[in-house]
Amino acid sequence: MIEYRSGRDDNTANFNMNQPAPLPFPGRIRIVLSHTSHPGNIGAAARAMKTMGLARLVLVHPRQFPHADAVALASGAVDVLDQARVVATLEDALEGCVFVIGMTARKRDLSHPFMALRDAAAQAVAEAQHGEVAIVFGTEMFGLSNTELDRCHVAAGIPANPEYSSLNLAASVQVAAYEIAQAAALWKPAPPRLRQPALHEEVEAFFAHLENSMIESGFLDPQRPKRLMTRLRRLFTRASLEKEEVNILRGILVALERKAHNRIRSE
Amino acid sequence: MIEYRSGRDDNTANFNMNQPAPLPFPGRIRIVLSHTSHPGNIGAAARAMKTMGLARLVLVHPRQFPHADAVALASGAVDVLDQARVVATLEDALEGCVFVIGMTARKRDLSHPFMALRDAAAQAVAEAQHGEVAIVFGTEMFGLSNTELDRCHVAAGIPANPEYSSLNLAASVQVAAYEIAQAAALWKPAPPRLRQPALHEEVEAFFAHLENSMIESGFLDPQRPKRLMTRLRRLFTRASLEKEEVNILRGILVALERKAHNRIRSE
Repeated sequence: MIEYRSGRDDNTANFNMNQPAPLPFPGRIRIVLSHTSHPGNIGAAARAMKTMGLARLVLVHPRQFPHADAVALASGAVDVLDQARVVATLEDALEGCVFVIGMTARKRDLSHPFMALRDAAAQAVAEAQHGEVAIVFGTEMFGLSNTELDRCHVAAGIPANPEYSSLNLAASVQVAAYEIAQAAALWKPAPPRLRQPALHEEVEAFFAHLENSMIESGFLDPQRPKRLMTRLRRLFTRASLEKEEVNILRGILVALERKAHNRIRSE
Repeated sequence: MIEYRSGRDDNTANFNMNQPAPLPFPGRIRIVLSHTSHPGNIGAAARAMKTMGLARLVLVHPRQFPHADAVALASGAVDVLDQARVVATLEDALEGCVFVIGMTARKRDLSHPFMALRDAAAQAVAEAQHGEVAIVFGTEMFGLSNTELDRCHVAAGIPANPEYSSLNLAASVQVAAYEIAQAAALWKPAPPRLRQPALHEEVEAFFAHLENSMIESGFLDPQRPKRLMTRLRRLFTRASLEKEEVNILRGILVALERKAHNRIRSE
């Protein structure tokens, strides 16, 4: 029988870091499957992950899980299913992450940085030196939504036949996990970083703060938001904010709000 | 409905070379699945191939084919199934090949050259400049037999978790096809070869000739063959014989046989 822990029971990404680690940092790289339709694909993805030394699976609102099809397709990787976290939102799944790759079959909005999988995998392994990394896969039918992609630092794709680029979900996970394993095998330590990347939730808190400030100041009409937040998200996500930078930006917002508040009081 | 052509109807590897070719030489690289148990895996393998621009599938004595499961799992790649050749033996499947990769999960007999998939894929694409190339996958349960591996120039493996290296058959095909596509994208033409590689069937004819000569001469006792032919196979396969070399070797055998024959007559 499958056990699973709800993401809301344990409020941090508490995976077992003491598991055997055949590759550098696999314990820091999680595979996130968002709104998966078929439980068999979850099982096959777990098998694909384990063959490449990845053990951390996070499921965002799967249609059916646990499920016998998942167990059947997982074959010898039922332990990966047993340890999978099930969460309600992509936000929950990305908690604690410093680098997030969104997998997509097509190049969409060009404002989003797009990388070939091999380059993205190399960067993922490098980033895993510094913190938690996620690779996110969307639904079988539609992939990731634009809103979901906006939560990712880069969009990455598996270069495929332009006339038929439809990899099965588990096949995509297999290729991505393979490239992570290859990148990990080739990995050499980089010089230490001077600055500390911001955590996903710190960046999100900044976005919420920024949005609120814009509404309070009258710059953003919540009835007619247009694409303002999306554009700002992309700008700051592309920049890969440091912790210190988030603190500075929020400090600026606080200072401006205080001044506006004082002016209203003094008028 | 699936149509398929038996390999014995068309005696050469006549695939349609006029199909769209998004990658260099994909028309010269065939995927061979030997004695596959589950037709669903054949369909999933066809889908994996097509996503990477490969269209040539050869099935050696599949347990069940055609089959509805193959069609279901092929998704949009039913055309690859339709064009698949079904043959009786691995010999038939390899006809016309100058370079054959046998996929294996484990390093077996060390006398067989073993390559990581990425290197083997680069070599496959380079060899496809000169002629037909095959990548051979064994059964779901046991992989390729040693006898089958002896027909391959190199054994190649997907580097995997040593504690769980069991990739699903279609997942292995997906990763191999992906590496072929990556190698093809990186491929640059090499200087032209001065010599012409021998075709698989020319090498096999030489082996048959050699074995016969050894038996006729009394060197090989067919009742107690031990591993003599296997060792000779490995030696010559490792050497990747040229056409001219096969002709020379067979010429030597003919000359020795003639001399032996004349001596018997003159005695």
